[in-house]
Order: sequence, then C-alpha cells, then structure tokens
Amino acid sequence: MFANLEHLGLAVHDLEAATALYTTLLGQAPYKKEHVASEGVDTVFFQVGGSKIELLAGTTPDSAITKYLGKKPEGIHHVAFEVADIRAEMQRLRQEGFTLLNEEPKRGADNKLVCFVHPKSAAGVLVELCQTIGPTDHE
Amino acid sequence: MFANLEHLGLAVHDLEAATALYTTLLGQAPYKKEHVASEGVDTVFFQVGGSKIELLAGTTPDSAITKYLGKKPEGIHHVAFEVADIRAEMQRLRQEGFTLLNEEPKRGADNKLVCFVHPKSAAGVLVELCQTIGPTDHE
Repeated sequence: MFANLEHLGLAVHDLEAATALYTTLLGQAPYKKEHVASEGVDTVFFQVGGSKIELLAGTTPDSAITKYLGKKPEGIHHVAFEVADIRAEMQRLRQEGFTLLNEEPKRGADNKLVCFVHPKSAAGVLVELCQTIGPTDHE
Repeated sequence: MFANLEHLGLAVHDLEAATALYTTLLGQAPYKKEHVASEGVDTVFFQVGGSKIELLAGTTPDSAITKYLGKKPEGIHHVAFEVADIRAEMQRLRQEGFTLLNEEPKRGADNKLVCFVHPKSAAGVLVELCQTIGPTDHE
C-alpha cells in the first residue's frame, strides 16, 4: 500500500526560469537544489503541505529528462509515492502483472531508494515508488 | 501560498477499468464515486496519505476530459492545490501575470470552489486551486 504522494516531478527546459515561476506560483521559495549525477539531472524541491514539487532539468544528452523533452512538451513527468518497504511493494506489483522499469531499487535524489512502474501499466502515468533510507533536508 | 497538494487528476477512457487498476496499484479501494453534472465527468477518489488521486472520465462530448482525451493519451490531467482563500489567491496570481481559466471560482467535485491556471502560465502543467467549502466524504 502506498503511504503518501511524496512528490510530483516536472520536466523543464530552463531550471532557473522554472524555479522563479514556481516560486511565484506556489508563493514560497524552494528549500533545496540537488544534482543527481547518476540520473543526469539537476533538481529543485518545493514543499507543499505533505508533498513536494520536484523540478527536473536534464544535464546530459542521455538523461531520461533530456530524452523526454526531446519528444514531449514541458509538464508533469512522474508521480512518486512513499512506501515503507520498496522491495515488498515491487514484489507485490510484479505479481499483479505491473511492468517495473528497474529490477532492483536504485538510488534517487533526496536520500531515497526508487523504482519506476511503466506508464503502460498505469493508465499513462509514470509512477515512482520511493523509500526514504536516510535523512532528507526537509520532510 | 498553497497549503497542500490536494489531489492529482487523471484522465481515463474507461473509469471501471482504471478504478480496478488503481485499486490494485495503490493497494486500496476508492472511498467514493461522484458524478459532476456541471463538468460532464464521473470521478472516483482514492486517499493516499494527505492527498487524493481523482480518476476522471468524460460523460458528454463537451466535457473537458472528453475533449482532452480526443487529443492526448490517458494520463495526468491536472494537479490541484488546496488554498485557504481562493479569491485572494486568484487575485495574487492575476497580479503576478498568470492566466486564469475562469474569472470567478466555480463549484467542483468534493464540495470545493475551484479555479484553473492556464498550463502556458505554469510550464505545461494545468494547475487547479481549490478551497473546501463544505463537508467532504474523506479528508
């Protein structure tokens, strides 16, 4: 069972411009920026109640975000749900017939283990499962 | 300032099939269904932590969801943020240069007043502001 809508990930071309835009829209400043070298992305996080808005810009041609924005317009890229035991949830979803995009949890931004579910399995939505494994800068 | 990520709205073709899929994915049953005649939609709500997942299917050719799915694939349609005073937030955003899709708050599902911000104003994201004005079936 999914415990919380942990964050919503938005793919953007210009991280600085999008950060300024969302600072105004949400009425608050972001609480952190983080470069995730393994994913080739720069990220900016806003806290809105119990959930986060994560802006994502690709930093390499191979980044999933760079590739995504080569095909699609800016917008919502994925929705992430907090789970208590990511391996147990991955096993449950596999048994239910969902297609997972990684066989093992991988390290994501914000001190998390993450796994993605294929959008074809979830009515067009790229779903991320995430389990917090260490201190985050904001909860 | 936005108080919470109140819900994520997903546009789907087949509400019954999507409800079954999301019941399995989220690991829980929805807590309500609601027909919103004014918008021409049937909705199904799931509670995930402090946020909701709203499945939306159009029931008329003029419904925004029907038109959306005539042009785009199933997936995330909008993200809704809870605000304490929707008219004050609308005024703030107008002054900041955001384009609002309705001049006055309108009645939405789940006992709310709602207003939409044009996706061109928000990096491709259809943003809804919502203010709770009466009892909801679930908080």
